Parts: sequence; C-alpha cells; structure tokens
Amino acid sequence: MTQQKQMILSLAMFGAAGLNFKSWTDPEVKLSSYPDINIDIEAAKLAEKGKFHFMFFGDFPGNKASDTSDMQTMGLDPMMIASIISNHTERIGMGITRATSWSNPYDVARQFKTLDALSKGRMAWNAVTGANGVSANAYGVNLAPSFDRYGKAYEFTEAVQALWATWGEDALKLNHSTKEFADYDQVKAISLKGKYVQSSGTLPIPPSKQGQPLIFHSGGSENSIAFAGKYADVFVGEVWTIEQGQAIRQALRDAAVANGRQPDDIKFIAGVMPLLGDNKKEAIERHAQFIDDDTFLQRVAHIGYVLGIDFTPADLEKPIDPKLLDQVVVTPYSDPRLENVLKVAREGWSLRELVYHSVIDYHPAAVGTAQDIADYMTEWFEAGAADGFWVMPDVYKVDLTRFVDEVVPILQEEGSFHKDYEGETLRENLGVAYQYGTRERE
Amino acid sequence: MTQQKQMILSLAMFGAAGLNFKSWTDPEVKLSSYPDINIDIEAAKLAEKGKFHFMFFGDFPGNKASDTSDMQTMGLDPMMIASIISNHTERIGMGITRATSWSNPYDVARQFKTLDALSKGRMAWNAVTGANGVSANAYGVNLAPSFDRYGKAYEFTEAVQALWATWGEDALKLNHSTKEFADYDQVKAISLKGKYVQSSGTLPIPPSKQGQPLIFHSGGSENSIAFAGKYADVFVGEVWTIEQGQAIRQALRDAAVANGRQPDDIKFIAGVMPLLGDNKKEAIERHAQFIDDDTFLQRVAHIGYVLGIDFTPADLEKPIDPKLLDQVVVTPYSDPRLENVLKVAREGWSLRELVYHSVIDYHPAAVGTAQDIADYMTEWFEAGAADGFWVMPDVYKVDLTRFVDEVVPILQEEGSFHKDYEGETLRENLGVAYQYGTRERE
Ligand SMILES: Cc1cc2nc3c(=O)[nH]c(=O)nc-3n(C[C@H](O)[C@H](O)[C@H](O)COP(=O)(O)O)c2cc1C
Ligand SMILES: Cc1cc2nc3c(=O)[nH]c(=O)nc-3n(C[C@H](O)[C@H](O)[C@H](O)COP(=O)(O)O)c2cc1C
Repeated sequence: MTQQKQMILSLAMFGAAGLNFKSWTDPEVKLSSYPDINIDIEAAKLAEKGKFHFMFFGDFPGNKASDTSDMQTMGLDPMMIASIISNHTERIGMGITRATSWSNPYDVARQFKTLDALSKGRMAWNAVTGANGVSANAYGVNLAPSFDRYGKAYEFTEAVQALWATWGEDALKLNHSTKEFADYDQVKAISLKGKYVQSSGTLPIPPSKQGQPLIFHSGGSENSIAFAGKYADVFVGEVWTIEQGQAIRQALRDAAVANGRQPDDIKFIAGVMPLLGDNKKEAIERHAQFIDDDTFLQRVAHIGYVLGIDFTPADLEKPIDPKLLDQVVVTPYSDPRLENVLKVAREGWSLRELVYHSVIDYHPAAVGTAQDIADYMTEWFEAGAADGFWVMPDVYKVDLTRFVDEVVPILQEEGSFHKDYEGETLRENLGVAYQYGTRERE
Repeated sequence: MTQQKQMILSLAMFGAAGLNFKSWTDPEVKLSSYPDINIDIEAAKLAEKGKFHFMFFGDFPGNKASDTSDMQTMGLDPMMIASIISNHTERIGMGITRATSWSNPYDVARQFKTLDALSKGRMAWNAVTGANGVSANAYGVNLAPSFDRYGKAYEFTEAVQALWATWGEDALKLNHSTKEFADYDQVKAISLKGKYVQSSGTLPIPPSKQGQPLIFHSGGSENSIAFAGKYADVFVGEVWTIEQGQAIRQALRDAAVANGRQPDDIKFIAGVMPLLGDNKKEAIERHAQFIDDDTFLQRVAHIGYVLGIDFTPADLEKPIDPKLLDQVVVTPYSDPRLENVLKVAREGWSLRELVYHSVIDYHPAAVGTAQDIADYMTEWFEAGAADGFWVMPDVYKVDLTRFVDEVVPILQEEGSFHKDYEGETLRENLGVAYQYGTRERE
C-alpha cells in the first residue's frame, strides 16, 4: 500500500482573535485587555490538536488600523509571540515573515536560529522582500525598485544561511568527563561584502534538531517565483481559483527544476477562509456579522466594478441576472477575484449573499458544512492547485474549534490529511530535507 | 516609622548555567543539551522567589567563546529568552541590552514595547552605545568614534521613546457595546530625520501597565554619564571599590540634576560575585573549581603586573610580603582592580587564595558566609557606593539557591531589602515614575 500524498495545513496568525479585524466582537471571545497573549497560545494549541503543520505569521510593521471597530493587528513583534507559543507547544511549526528590505541579516539569522534551537527545530523564516512603504519608512528606508529589492533578497538570504552554518555541525561536545563544551575551531567566521548586504563573523548557536530554519517565501511577481525557485521550501500564496493555483504551483515547480531541485521541493500553500455552518446560508450569515456597513457597501461597489454592472439598492436582495453574468469577459488584466465572483454568483445567491461569501477579500472562502469545506480543499489539492492551505477562520475560539473538530477528521478519514505528526521537527513534518548552510555548500 | 531606604537586587543573565563560563561543569547542573531554556526559566523563578527586582541581560552578538571548556554565552538572542521567561514569571522585571551602534530604533522600540505589553509592564531597555567591534562587524558596520556613537545614542533613544508614545494613552477603547476597539485618530505618526537616525510612522501598541519600558544604561566615560543623566532610570556599572562606586554614583546624581531631574532618579547598580560558603576558605575553594589552569596562571601574572611584583611558583602558597604591598602606589591610571587586590592581599591570603578570591575578574567578589556577604552589600549600600547590585552567582542551581535562601533573608531581616514586591510593574518596584514618550513631552 503506497502512502497517499497528503495536504499541508497551516493556521494564519495576525495578532487578533481570529483572521478578521472584527473577531474581537464575537461574544465568545470576551477580550478584556489588549494585547492578550493567551489568545495566541490557545489558537496554537487548537491548531496543534488539529495536527496543523505550522502557524503562519505575516509581518507589516508600522501599519495601524483605521476603522474604529477594527482590532489592531500586527503591531506586536511576531518573534516575541512565537517565542512564547513555542514554549506552550511541542510539534507545530512556525513560519514568520521578516522582510529583507528593512531588516538586518544578522538579526534575522540570530533571532530565527535562537528560536529554532529553543523550539527544537520548528521554525521557518518567510523571506519576503516586502513592498510596504509604511513599514519601510518606519525603519527609515525607502522602498527600492523590484530589481534591487530582489537583488538584496538574494544576498540577504545567502548571508542568513551562511551565518546559520558558522557553528560547525559537530562543534558542540558537551562532554562532561573531558570538560569539553565545544570545539571552537569548528566555529568559523564568514566575511560577506555584497552590493546590498555586509556581515562578518560568527553566529555561535549550534544546529537545532532540524539543522536550521526552513525558508518560506510569499510574493507573486516573476522575480518572486525565481527567488523561490532558488531558496524556498514553501511558498505561501494568494490565489482565488483552481486555475490560478495550478499556474503558480507549476511555475514554482519549474523554477525549482531550473535551480537543480526537484519539483516537489517547493510546496505551494493557498489561502482559504472556511465559513462553516450547518448549511451554506447559516455559514455566510455567521460571517456577515463581521462585515460592517461601510465594508459591505464598498464590496457591493467592487463587485459591480469587476462585473461592469451598476447596482442599485433594489438589486441587493435578488440574484444577479444570469444573462448579465454571461456577458462578462475575463481577461488577464481582470481582478484575480473575478472568476470566483462569477462562479459563486452563478449559484444563484442574492447580491447581499454574494458579499457575505466574502468573494471580495484577501482569500477565497470555502462555504458550507464541514463536508463542503473538506470537499473544497480536496478538490484544489487533487487538481494540483495547492499542496496545502493556510486556513483563516474568522474566530479561533469558534470557527477554528469547529474546523479542528469537524473538518480535520473528515480529511483524515478520507486519507488526504495526516492523522499525526510524522516527526518532531518542521522539516520532518513537511518532508523537507535537512539543510545546514547555503544550498551551494551542500 | 519612616521606611528605611532599601537596596535593589538584580540577577545577571548571560546564557549559561550561572555567571561563569564553567558553570555547566558543576555536577548539579547536569546539562544534557544546549541551548536549554529551562536553565533560564529556573534561574528566573529562583530570583523571583528571592524578590529580585530584575534580571539583567548583556548582549554581545557575534562573540564566540574560545576556550574549549568554556560554555558559549550570549549567542542566543536575549529577547527570545526574555519572552519565554516573562511567561513563566509574574513580578520580576527584565533589563535587556541592545546597542544603539548597530540596531534599528524601530526594531528596538517594537520588540521592547511588545514584551513590555505582554509582560504587563516589566521591561527595561539597557541602551548602551556598544564598543564591541565584533558585534558591529556582524551587523555590517564599523564602530564610530565616541562622539558619533553617543550622538547616535541620543537620537536613537529619542526616536524609541517617541515611537513608544505614538499610540495615544487613551486610544484603546475595547468597548464591546459600541464595538469601538480604538480611536485611531489618537495613534499619531512621528517623522524623525536626524543626523544618525530616521524613522517615521507609528508603533501601534497600547501603553503597558507601566506605560513604556524603563531606560537603563551601562558605560563609564564622560559621554556615558552625560547620556545617563538625560535618559537613564538605572545605570548598571562596573566598579571594584566603595570609593569608585561613590564617585560614579555621585557623578550620575550630578548628571541627573544637570538635566533637571532629581538625584535619586538614577539608580546606580554595582556588580558583585557572591562566593558563598560555610566560611571564607570553603567559599573560595568552591569558586576555584571554575578557574582553569591557564586562567589561573594569567591571573597570577596579572596580579604581579598590577602590583609590580615578579612572582615565582614558590610564591604561590604563601601570603604576599606586607612590606611589598606597602610599596605599591595607586594612581588614577592604575588598573581599577588594584585597590581591591591590595585590600584582599592584606587579609593575609596566599597568592593562590588571592586568585581564588577572583580579584582579577569583571566584578568584585563578596566572600564568606551569608552574613559576610550581606555585610559586604550593606556596607556598600550604606556608604552610598551603590543603590543596589547585579548579582553574579557561579551556578544558579547551587549558588543562587543559597543566596536566595540564606543571604536574602538576612538583608530582609535587617531591613535593607524588601520582603515583597511593592507593585506589579518594574517602575513600581524600583520607584521610577510613570513615563510615556520622551521626557520633553512630559
Ligand atoms: C501571501 C502573501 C503574504 C505576504 N506577506 C507579507 C508580509 O507579511 N509582509 C510584507 O511586508 N510583505 C508581504 N507580502 C508582500 C510580498 O513581500 C511582496 O512584496 C509583494 O507580494 C509584491 O511582490 P513583488 O515584490 O514580487 O513584486 C506578502 C505577499 C503575499 C502574496
Ligand atoms: C556593566 C557594563 C555592561 C555593559 N554591557 C554591554 C553589553 O551588553 N553589550 C555591549 O555591546 N556593550 C556593553 N557595555 C559596553 C558599553 O556599551 C560601552 O560601550 C563601554 O562601556 C565603553 O564605554 P564608552 O562607550 O562610554 O566609551 C557594557 C559596559 C558596562 C560598564
């Protein structure tokens, strides 16, 4: 019996009570102070109970919320939160974003390897270039053009991986009888003077249980795919349709091969918002409570804009005329969410319900019962549109709990998701080969 | 009854099983892997049991150990360790070093405020300039001259404190009935373009229970004292005699006044290595096991050098001739440890035992029974040579345990150390006034 290929699950974390700016208003949350680290700890424990492979932390320093009813997200430094979470969990991994455009490679190398060692091999660095001007300005820099941002990202990643390997793999001795702690001759300095990045010296931390942290990447441009081809073990992406997922996943597999790697060496992770209810209507109505009036109207307008239809208030409570939908032309320049808008609209929902399906959002929603959501994920997975998902439940306490209790067992029963962690480290659990130092060094 | 002024105690942390490179060799330690976060957690819990005000973390990134029997220290990032410790403790504070010469102010502001919020007001940033070339090179920079290092330190600290206050004190609402999370109009961007430091935007984290982290400083030069006069709540120093302590403490008090502050606004913390035993001889012999042969011979040579005496192996087991000691002249250019060497030598110890007293080390030792050590500390404290101490026990598990169980109760009984924490935050426990933002802003 050959082992069926299985999907990867990860939980998105962005510093709120769930993946919604309004999650804090859910009566179940009972937020009485902010920040409250217990929310993150509980979410992590739930995800670990559900055998999620890792938690995924974005990072947009300096970006304040604006709508008064929105919870502030990502103000706190995710490395501090992950440190505490690592101490409350045993198997689940952590992928944390740090942008190369405004960080220092020594800091990134040191903080990630520290946590990789302390968590016993459960860390990944999501190496993004970052295209956020607010973050850049907070760090006192201006955003460079893509060419230079990626030029720096290559040097930066090389530097980080080279620093990781300055402590020789066999340098640690811990020999009590000879009183030999380490053979420090095996801790060797590097000296890097690149166009964008300088660092010399050592990072004196022994290998973790998995050697060193994995490299994740997020982006989408050609430069981004090429960078991922060289470095990324996991690519966390943003797609709305199976076709889009297939295209970027294939591009990543090709990029891996172009870099002398195997296609499966890069795992493509698509986003999904599970809207879970006893039926589809209930599921979207639960989600509706987190959409405020302004956002609702903006999304109605945006749906009209991408479809090329002028809606009036009278249109809200009825389905969009199928004839109008048939006239819509999808081009490569269309909003990437357009095809998904069309697909859901054709199911006959009213315009209001269409908005409640969250068709205009950062990620597509899977809507319905636990079986519906499992089916959605399996369809994507089997179509080769994703190797796994980053899951964005509205409220951890409510929607993640249901996802873990109801969706995960279905996926496990069907054989498309593992029943337990394969090993102790993130590499073992994702099936990523051991690596220590830069790839060339291997 | 007026409350007697009481001393401050802090525990030094440098990433080993105690404040000795050989602490890991103590049979009680049983180090079976490295790193092992449990060592730090246990030390912190012990210190909290002893009502220590704070733990003090130095930071010398990039410096690898060299002697094969020395434990690697300070390789790991202290912010990660402190994050985990904060989650295992309730009252003890944490002062962590981050040098302005190679860090980014937004990172410092964000990481410290994150941890201040998560620890509910127990953090301090030890704002040093840093004079370590190895650390600077790791971060890809060269060390600037003192003028520029301190020039940058001023701008850096202003930027950090300004960022801390970008989230208005009353911006957080968390009002469940009106669904108002925060009034984001009260989260106001700064825009700093200094000679050395740039940052603009917001750091969207609400005030912690103590507003914002305290500022500590370590150094010694005139520039350092002047900087402390403006910013420091606590100055962590390096002195070997009561006179040295009195001089620097007075200089700091004067510097505070020169900046429109009260003399007591800066607390001067001196280092002390407690060598604790049932008598002095036992105490130094316990310490002797952590001095390897090379170090022993170097220290003999250094004692000879500072005293201007050429020792031979035959001199090791006998006291130094008092007539020779009387001929030694102390000048302002002498090694700062010379007077302490003379003082201990005059007690009649053999040259070997003099070395075992650790007279040539980073900090002076207090040697003997619990009462001897309490007396040493009280003498310094009452002479105005220190407002408190950073305590450096050889092995946390052994020597810190004894310090907490034996020395602390004596100090408490005598009224020179508090019996319990005064409050919940580091400010409350140190008696440092609330501050939010830069001092000018107040
Ligand atoms: C799924 C996803 C997650 C991302 N997360 C972050 C992030 O946390 N922080 C950040 O600064 N940028 C993030 N980015 C932005 C990317 O770093 C990148 O700058 C952006 O996609 C623009 O692409 P390009 O740089 O390839 O042109 C993310 C992008 C995607 C697609
Ligand atoms: C007690 C003490 C602790 C210090 N801790 C650190 C440290 O952890 N990291 C660091 O880079 N420098 C540290 N320093 C060095 C100071 O930052 C400073 O650069 C040094 O004392 C030279 O003084 P100056 O810069 O005033 O000339 C410390 C100094 C003292 C006295």
